[in-house]
Amino acid sequence: MRLISYTRLGQAGFGALTEGGVIALAGRLDRTVATLKQAIAGDLLREIRSFAKDRPAELALSDVTLLPVIPDPAKILCIGLNYETHRHETGRAVAQYPSVFTRFADTQIAHGEAIVKPDVSNALDYEGELAVVIGRGGRNIAEKDAMAHVAGYACYNDATVRDWQRHTHQFTPGKNFPSTGAFGPALVSADEVADYTRLPIATRVNGETVQSATLADLIFPIPRLIAYCSAFTPLSPGDVILTGTPGGVGDRREPPSYLKAGDVIEVEIGGIGRLVNRIENEARI
Amino acid sequence: MRLISYTRLGQAGFGALTEGGVIALAGRLDRTVATLKQAIAGDLLREIRSFAKDRPAELALSDVTLLPVIPDPAKILCIGLNYETHRHETGRAVAQYPSVFTRFADTQIAHGEAIVKPDVSNALDYEGELAVVIGRGGRNIAEKDAMAHVAGYACYNDATVRDWQRHTHQFTPGKNFPSTGAFGPALVSADEVADYTRLPIATRVNGETVQSATLADLIFPIPRLIAYCSAFTPLSPGDVILTGTPGGVGDRREPPSYLKAGDVIEVEIGGIGRLVNRIENEARI
Repeated sequence: MRLISYTRLGQAGFGALTEGGVIALAGRLDRTVATLKQAIAGDLLREIRSFAKDRPAELALSDVTLLPVIPDPAKILCIGLNYETHRHETGRAVAQYPSVFTRFADTQIAHGEAIVKPDVSNALDYEGELAVVIGRGGRNIAEKDAMAHVAGYACYNDATVRDWQRHTHQFTPGKNFPSTGAFGPALVSADEVADYTRLPIATRVNGETVQSATLADLIFPIPRLIAYCSAFTPLSPGDVILTGTPGGVGDRREPPSYLKAGDVIEVEIGGIGRLVNRIENEARI
Repeated sequence: MRLISYTRLGQAGFGALTEGGVIALAGRLDRTVATLKQAIAGDLLREIRSFAKDRPAELALSDVTLLPVIPDPAKILCIGLNYETHRHETGRAVAQYPSVFTRFADTQIAHGEAIVKPDVSNALDYEGELAVVIGRGGRNIAEKDAMAHVAGYACYNDATVRDWQRHTHQFTPGKNFPSTGAFGPALVSADEVADYTRLPIATRVNGETVQSATLADLIFPIPRLIAYCSAFTPLSPGDVILTGTPGGVGDRREPPSYLKAGDVIEVEIGGIGRLVNRIENEARI
């Protein structure tokens, strides 16, 4: 099952994506459930599946404007250096623990929206990633139980302003410019992914493949990430863990190659979707 | 003017702290304004001042249970290594930019609440800091305009789990354990602080002074922090910038000295207040 967050006629909603289009879900299963995050928190994904089964779509996908899959996660936990190819290209030491930084929710954009290159930098770079959306929350989740806490998966482009990422040892500035966290197009519910380690991930810039890996390459696999993060912070429904990016970032090419206005970036994960965004320059007021 | 956030009889509120006690403010100036963050967003501090002037307090301070000054900031931007004494004791290089990491709002506790030492670590440490609370929000705020964006100040203890802070180069895990961000007791409105650089700051553990500095010692002064942070992320009313901690952390003593259950930590900033918290061990369920 594929679920999307969107606006239509100025109103936010969410729905199930079928071959025929969109089945609107906001307020429909439960009057108080207006967002995908609330549906996840209410443990309604199974109910949505039966509600949507064999029901004709009411809206064309073109009738809605996509939002980030979860527009309002309480926490976005980003994992750095989680593919050996990327760790190696950055020259970082082998680590015993996942490296964790954060992204604010207001940096996020949807599939089809523009990633914005800020005026203050010419070092905007892509990072194709698998996003894990937490279903059931918790603290101190054991690795063996962790996969039961996953609501589903989506593509993410953790676009990074490299010079600001390297202003100091802490990544926050380079990871939090507005309109740099592309998240979409849809949430694929966890029951559709029998084994995430078989998923191929690729990033393309203007059609050329620049990152290519499989999720089996994760240094710290998803259960370990959930266990580690929930050991220091409680996870809640709708929280997002970005699992890291494979080798091949523009910053580590020779010569380095950064994104410029007009470029089109795709992050495609087999069975999960294809996230497409173009680059635009910042429109300063 | 001193403003507090609190609960009373199970209901959240906020109020002005006077010599006689507390003047309740939630829903009083404007029915829709239920929190201090909303009052700041509504630019109501001046109005609150005239409302509270010469009005008798209705509640004793003991009638309310304090909350963190702003329980629900959208962003908590923490500045690392912003006193030369602390930069030097950590062995970090001189930096051209402020180092910025983040803390989730759900890590926060009030004056008088316990800072919790997690079971997974014996390296809990204090960090006394001045917290700046943003009044008027904005992006790309110029240094010369920055002080007009400050609603006020409070004491903060950015308590840190040192071993988890050093699991990798990113500080997030060590800075985000529950009940480690002590914020209180009250917000002192900016108009009461003619020159923040004159404020003395001290941290005491069981009565012994362990950190002592003045805010003039900040490597990156407050206007620069606001300008830098707002260059990569929009600031909103109620957002918090933690300005960094002076030298003298327990982690850099010889031998290192960490906090243990029963210890009492005070962070006192002249004219701003005295934040007191005791250490408790984690109560695992």
